Amino acid sequence: MALVVQKYGGTSVADVERIRSVARRVVARKEAGDQLVVVLSARAGDTDRLLALGREMSPNPDPRELDVLISTGEQITVALFSMAVKDLGAEAVSMTGTQAGILTDHHHGEARINSIATLPLKQKIDEGKIVVVAGFQGSDNEGNITTLGRGGSDTTAVGLAAALGAEVCEIYTDVEGVYTTDPNIYDKARKLDKISYEEMLEMASMGAKVLHLRSVEFGMKYNVPILVCSSFTDASGTLVLQEDEEMERVMVSGITYNRNEARITLTNVPDIPGMAAKLFHPISEAGINVDLIVQGSGSIPGRANLSFTVPKPHYEETMEIAKRVAGEIDAGVHSNPNIAKISVIGVGMRSHSGVASKMFDILASQNINLKMISTSEIKISCIIDEKFAELAVRLLHDAFELDKAPGERVVIAEES
Amino acid sequence: MALVVQKYGGTSVADVERIRSVARRVVARKEAGDQLVVVLSARAGDTDRLLALGREMSPNPDPRELDVLISTGEQITVALFSMAVKDLGAEAVSMTGTQAGILTDHHHGEARINSIATLPLKQKIDEGKIVVVAGFQGSDNEGNITTLGRGGSDTTAVGLAAALGAEVCEIYTDVEGVYTTDPNIYDKARKLDKISYEEMLEMASMGAKVLHLRSVEFGMKYNVPILVCSSFTDASGTLVLQEDEEMERVMVSGITYNRNEARITLTNVPDIPGMAAKLFHPISEAGINVDLIVQGSGSIPGRANLSFTVPKPHYEETMEIAKRVAGEIDAGVHSNPNIAKISVIGVGMRSHSGVASKMFDILASQNINLKMISTSEIKISCIIDEKFAELAVRLLHDAFELDKAPGERVVIAEES
Repeated sequence: MALVVQKYGGTSVADVERIRSVARRVVARKEAGDQLVVVLSARAGDTDRLLALGREMSPNPDPRELDVLISTGEQITVALFSMAVKDLGAEAVSMTGTQAGILTDHHHGEARINSIATLPLKQKIDEGKIVVVAGFQGSDNEGNITTLGRGGSDTTAVGLAAALGAEVCEIYTDVEGVYTTDPNIYDKARKLDKISYEEMLEMASMGAKVLHLRSVEFGMKYNVPILVCSSFTDASGTLVLQEDEEMERVMVSGITYNRNEARITLTNVPDIPGMAAKLFHPISEAGINVDLIVQGSGSIPGRANLSFTVPKPHYEETMEIAKRVAGEIDAGVHSNPNIAKISVIGVGMRSHSGVASKMFDILASQNINLKMISTSEIKISCIIDEKFAELAVRLLHDAFELDKAPGERVVIAEES
Repeated sequence: MALVVQKYGGTSVADVERIRSVARRVVARKEAGDQLVVVLSARAGDTDRLLALGREMSPNPDPRELDVLISTGEQITVALFSMAVKDLGAEAVSMTGTQAGILTDHHHGEARINSIATLPLKQKIDEGKIVVVAGFQGSDNEGNITTLGRGGSDTTAVGLAAALGAEVCEIYTDVEGVYTTDPNIYDKARKLDKISYEEMLEMASMGAKVLHLRSVEFGMKYNVPILVCSSFTDASGTLVLQEDEEMERVMVSGITYNRNEARITLTNVPDIPGMAAKLFHPISEAGINVDLIVQGSGSIPGRANLSFTVPKPHYEETMEIAKRVAGEIDAGVHSNPNIAKISVIGVGMRSHSGVASKMFDILASQNINLKMISTSEIKISCIIDEKFAELAVRLLHDAFELDKAPGERVVIAEES
């Protein structure tokens, strides 16, 4: 008998028929002998509707009250789901985030889980009940309702799995798992059987929005295996877990792309201390997240070129700041909002060299110009013209033979 | 500086524009120097929509989970309202029933308030905040969410007023107060300036659904003055409070009617102990509330006739029980679902005789036949043919001169 935490997203509980279908799946699993904690999101669209209602009420809704408002979305699904489970003859009990003992910090709308008081939950599990917990929410130490931000139900699920010592945290969603690349771009994309937490973090942060970033961090910190799978099929899904030797033998696990960034370059920046801070401090103050930063030498001695990328929605605002700072330090500014970031990810890069050069070769062979390059231990990212994004993904996917199972690949790289 | 509890019903907070309008009213009152606790219902229709959703999910929704579901209705309004108050520059904080310390028994859907832990609420009042409490809900001593039944927000408000020692509990609704009779039936109906708790209880239970019955009992028990008034006008409303000498001088305060009952009569019931129990026990077991019961002698010596009324929706079910019992005890059954109950109410009846005979005279003068009569200390009820209901109300209203202020009436009755 294993203790399993399952999480179902908004599309899986979008209406009573789907809720009933998920309930049948859960009850069958329970009858097969497992203990179950089920974490649910709000019905698809509900959170957006509640947010819209809040904005209709107030141009700038109070964050505390916005959390009180939007947390009702999950409260509705857990109640409905528990009714459905009971109609199937099993015992169920719903819990709001507060009732489930999920204690967070005070940051309304983006709260972090500090601790989980599992006693009430454990009691109900021991009574043989399927415990149905509202995802995405908790309360702070003064009893105020908080929410964990978009995708926060994943974090609720992994957090509960960690706190309860569950065998696995299963995240049911509308995709069948994590793919080598976006199947919508390339039909040769292959579902991964497993992937390490670190690779998943790179995948998630690059736009493969399968799991909430923080849930993966949680999983990694507490070593909770996370199974990503579809609630609409019985396919096996992708297991996210600690890196093992087998993974290390694989050079590349996936290719991601992101077309939602814009590049800004300051040319001929005086190459003296404090210049970067002068630029990035006001950008950060404006709440804008800079992604890549690359600095190279400029065309004038003692001057450097500084390129960086920001999310497209913040492009105009960032340009205004960049132009102001450039004027102050006598630098030039140019920009390109039509870029794409292509990344190759794999923990195997740690022990294999040659991945970067292979990537550059392949892109060069099709005359795809690299505008920026950034590397980490397990990831290489290149900024290219947006129009080449799909082409680059397909080329790299083919070159690294990601359509084949890892053991069948013959891609040559050097073992370092 | 007075502490005031205000309650606004569903039509008063039906949309963001009305919520904003009520918020302006509340903030103005706060700025005038009062401390305010505001209790809100769900937006008009929301509770029904949530109940329908629950019934869509399950043919017989689990009562615990139904409470989790429908309590979201008020959570939404308190969040929106608090946003609106803050936008007006005042401090506000929303509280669910649980957060407001409203502790109830375990009866989901029809819970009773056992106690209110007012400390968290008092702290927020002392901080100068307008405290906005979700009506209709609380939690039991195991932390399960409970609801108080239809109209339960009134009880939340009066309960909080009692627990906090508020000066008055103001119930804002879509009518301007309590009337001598239903203004929709008779345009001469006059708004009462004040009415005693007991009269109000009789009015409410007779179908003048202005206040939740239990809220009046609460007000009477803890002596909380309740002001019923409109949230759409500045009219003065009706104050419900302890009976005083002035009220006692008034013979009749109001006329009510109820067309939602059916009458069933068992004829020639053996006049021996236990017969009534034999009939009413199974009816009560079926969860059916019997209203009037009248027993008179039957046409056969040693046999009696037993008439009673039940709510129309339970008519068929009750008839089945009545027929079964009648068969067992060799009695006859006849029934009439087309009846109306007309009641004359007034604490002054205690000290004035002649009200009943005047009522009978007036109805007889128009050939309205009395099918049942039932009297209490402050109320006389007659069952008549449904088709005469409006006529009877108008006749009695005129005869007792209820369109005139109490001091201007010349109705003759004897002081006992």
